Amino acid sequence: MTAAKFIVIEGLEGAGKSTAIAICQQFLEQHKVDFINVREPGGTPIAEALRTIVKDNHGEQIASETELLLMYAARSQLLHNVIRPALAKGQWVLGDRHNLSSQAYQGGGREIAATTLDSLANIVLKGLKPDLTIYLDIEPAVGLARAKGRGELDRIEQQALSFFERTRARYLELAEYDNTIKTVNAGQSMEVVHQDIITVLEQFMKSNN
Amino acid sequence: MTAAKFIVIEGLEGAGKSTAIAICQQFLEQHKVDFINVREPGGTPIAEALRTIVKDNHGEQIASETELLLMYAARSQLLHNVIRPALAKGQWVLGDRHNLSSQAYQGGGREIAATTLDSLANIVLKGLKPDLTIYLDIEPAVGLARAKGRGELDRIEQQALSFFERTRARYLELAEYDNTIKTVNAGQSMEVVHQDIITVLEQFMKSNN
Repeated sequence: MTAAKFIVIEGLEGAGKSTAIAICQQFLEQHKVDFINVREPGGTPIAEALRTIVKDNHGEQIASETELLLMYAARSQLLHNVIRPALAKGQWVLGDRHNLSSQAYQGGGREIAATTLDSLANIVLKGLKPDLTIYLDIEPAVGLARAKGRGELDRIEQQALSFFERTRARYLELAEYDNTIKTVNAGQSMEVVHQDIITVLEQFMKSNN
Repeated sequence: MTAAKFIVIEGLEGAGKSTAIAICQQFLEQHKVDFINVREPGGTPIAEALRTIVKDNHGEQIASETELLLMYAARSQLLHNVIRPALAKGQWVLGDRHNLSSQAYQGGGREIAATTLDSLANIVLKGLKPDLTIYLDIEPAVGLARAKGRGELDRIEQQALSFFERTRARYLELAEYDNTIKTVNAGQSMEVVHQDIITVLEQFMKSNN
């Protein structure tokens, strides 16, 4: 049997992450894989409390560095108390966002230096990395229109379009140089996106057999 | 007129920080200094929410790295929204703990690598440093007995004695090599401690005239 794997779904608001996660869940169930779902920021009581702080509009401006540290604090807690213990006992982990989100949103969107992100990643990840990341690529304007259709936008979703353009550019740049990140064109019809995700998962299972 | 100064009071639980802060306040008032009080972690709505997370016993173990990141996230927020704006408009800042606490508690007590603390300090402090730190030095056993007398201990105050011994050792080590940190023997009678604090403050004012 192959060792437990860590699979992450990434993408901008409105890229279709929830649907992609549902597809992955079904796929893993069909393959009799024992897995857990996690989301970032969040996934433990403390990390969920941090999620609320990061997502809400407060009477107070959140400094970019504060936001970044809170993201990594939530990630640290989730890794420590949920992800590492699950992988250690053979459970796969299916994640809704992980470190790549910080690299894209805080590094690309907020233009925080890559060296800053790298030092935080060193402190928190200690070398752990998803085995597979499916990045759902979408034009920011298209994704945001979809997200708006779902209801009120949170603090991060209210950023200017240019913020999401920088975020997307960073996602694409990082995906290009990392073979564990598979880009799916999320601007296609739902059926084609669905099939592309299944193809990525099948190739991943095959390469791990 | 001298530029606005940042003065910090540091020390273990039960070292007498609150009394020392009251003494500093009175001293600054007598010298007609316009100042604000801050405390760490805390001092802004978001930072106070983080203080609650760090101080409480949750149903969940807080990883050392999470605790460390939350301390720096709270510090980042306080620096950005309170300390830097105050100093910029000429107000002095009187702080109850600052970066030295992280170096002593997380670096000394929790034995987190100094390089880790340095990278976080670089991200958050961007070179800002207190002009004067008064470190109240106390035997951990004596300080903890005093703190216990005040009521229930919080999550950090419940650590083993050896944790506080490592914390104190780091405080003393850092004070030795930093001329802006003045150590006051907080094990003396209240009158003598009071007078020692006043002496430190008078020397500080003189050297800044």
